[in-house]
Amino acid sequence: MNLEERLRNGDKRACARLITMVENNEKEAFDILKKLHKHTGNAYIIGITGPPGSGKSTLTDRLTKELVKRGKKVGVIAIDPTSPFTGGAILGDRIRMSDLALDSNVFIRSMGTRGSLGGLSKATQGAVKVLDIYGADIIFIETVGVGQSEVDIVKMADTVLMVMVPNLGDDIQAIKAGIMEIADVFAINKSDLDGADKTQLEIEMNLDLNGKMDYRPPVLKVSAGKNKGIDELLDKLIEHKDYLESTGELEKRRNRNTKLEIVKLVEEELMEMILSKTREEDILDELSSQIVSRNLDPYTAKDKIINLIK
Amino acid sequence: MNLEERLRNGDKRACARLITMVENNEKEAFDILKKLHKHTGNAYIIGITGPPGSGKSTLTDRLTKELVKRGKKVGVIAIDPTSPFTGGAILGDRIRMSDLALDSNVFIRSMGTRGSLGGLSKATQGAVKVLDIYGADIIFIETVGVGQSEVDIVKMADTVLMVMVPNLGDDIQAIKAGIMEIADVFAINKSDLDGADKTQLEIEMNLDLNGKMDYRPPVLKVSAGKNKGIDELLDKLIEHKDYLESTGELEKRRNRNTKLEIVKLVEEELMEMILSKTREEDILDELSSQIVSRNLDPYTAKDKIINLIK
Repeated sequence: MNLEERLRNGDKRACARLITMVENNEKEAFDILKKLHKHTGNAYIIGITGPPGSGKSTLTDRLTKELVKRGKKVGVIAIDPTSPFTGGAILGDRIRMSDLALDSNVFIRSMGTRGSLGGLSKATQGAVKVLDIYGADIIFIETVGVGQSEVDIVKMADTVLMVMVPNLGDDIQAIKAGIMEIADVFAINKSDLDGADKTQLEIEMNLDLNGKMDYRPPVLKVSAGKNKGIDELLDKLIEHKDYLESTGELEKRRNRNTKLEIVKLVEEELMEMILSKTREEDILDELSSQIVSRNLDPYTAKDKIINLIK
Repeated sequence: MNLEERLRNGDKRACARLITMVENNEKEAFDILKKLHKHTGNAYIIGITGPPGSGKSTLTDRLTKELVKRGKKVGVIAIDPTSPFTGGAILGDRIRMSDLALDSNVFIRSMGTRGSLGGLSKATQGAVKVLDIYGADIIFIETVGVGQSEVDIVKMADTVLMVMVPNLGDDIQAIKAGIMEIADVFAINKSDLDGADKTQLEIEMNLDLNGKMDYRPPVLKVSAGKNKGIDELLDKLIEHKDYLESTGELEKRRNRNTKLEIVKLVEEELMEMILSKTREEDILDELSSQIVSRNLDPYTAKDKIINLIK
């Protein structure tokens, strides 16, 4: 059997191989994804985000275990920043620590910004498609950061789970402002800590500000470390799925997400074009030294490069 | 006097007006910046980043006060995610709370992703140039998130201060991996909390992994809330500035940062082009519904749009 057939038959190694090819931006991988696109759309995609220290990965592991117990096949894509210092060792640790990786119904993969040659968004969405064809019922996309690029990736999910934690200090305001609007379900993790009720109240008050909603995001207190509230959290995630499906909102949302995916694909490809164009001709070096010596301004430099591509 | 002259004379209202024009992506603002580019490069730019809850804004305020005491003129650009819910009220609160905003030697401005019509990076770098021409000696760029776009903005500074906090849990690994390499000075804030020594040790060990360095980033314990260690922290920031200047590294770094700025300017303008192109012709709607109904794949859709722009 070739790679494509093995993937469709749920072969875990074929799945791993294809995701690596996607990360390396290999043409063959995307040719396969183009061809098999008609077999996608069956998996349900849940984005998980939240500030550092909120315990997202433990929570993701718990949810995955619960889903496996319920007979589901689960894919997990963890988006981690990687660095030349650590070279992805963290990601390795995470996988080694998790007994889930050995389960035949679970596929876990960490992806880093640096490892994704065609762009992080293209790699993530490509991996989602691979897992979808592979036969995953549920795919989690989990991000470490709460920056704009991470939010852009997470909001391409069908349902977005926002993990909060008590005692975030002043910055909770800023996080809420940036994330509130994309969250469908809130989980306050480490809820045995002081301040969990206050955090819950703050989130509920913020939701109140939004006025009447057809669907109001539930706010749950959980403890991933102590395995508390995981069942209920999963039920709420599925409730949101049911809501989207029964109201026709799912198709609308997937339409919106697909638009965002196209825009990101175009953006990442154009960036590739610029970088290879400017690299081969040392244009950037030339322009930047003129700017630093104040013989040119950056806006004129930008126009010069744009004219190269057009 | 016209706006340009008023700015060069250090008029605070002209400064505010021009930054607003930059945020609105008004051509006139960038025409002025093009013309006055030769008068930039005098301000020293310090980027401040760190995870949510680390108390960056309080620390920035303290450093600003200390600099004013030392006779310096300071500009602060705080990058905050904004949301349709809050509409920037947080930013307003921050400014109202800070007595610094009234000081004639301090200019504070919050910028949000949504408010920056030409892109966040273009707006931030534009505001830096305005503050530079206005006469600021030091400009702080402070970000809330630790995501990729925030890191991209902060690393365009001359010196990068990374604010950590004890007890970040497992995610400290991930933050360190993403940020470690861009930090020139580390401050462990809230250092009266348990775990500060452990965090310091972890950072030092990570720096050890990097081997021998010409310049080794110092790791300081501070408490912004209790106003402890601010003086020393500022001295370390200035030591890094002196190191860069005396070794010729500053020019190299500004060259590198300028390249990044050009790439970001091009990237943001291309995004504008894609969005306006696809908006005017409803192309995105058409393509995405074909993709959702599985009659088209996203990669072919991407190629169609790229052909439109070229």
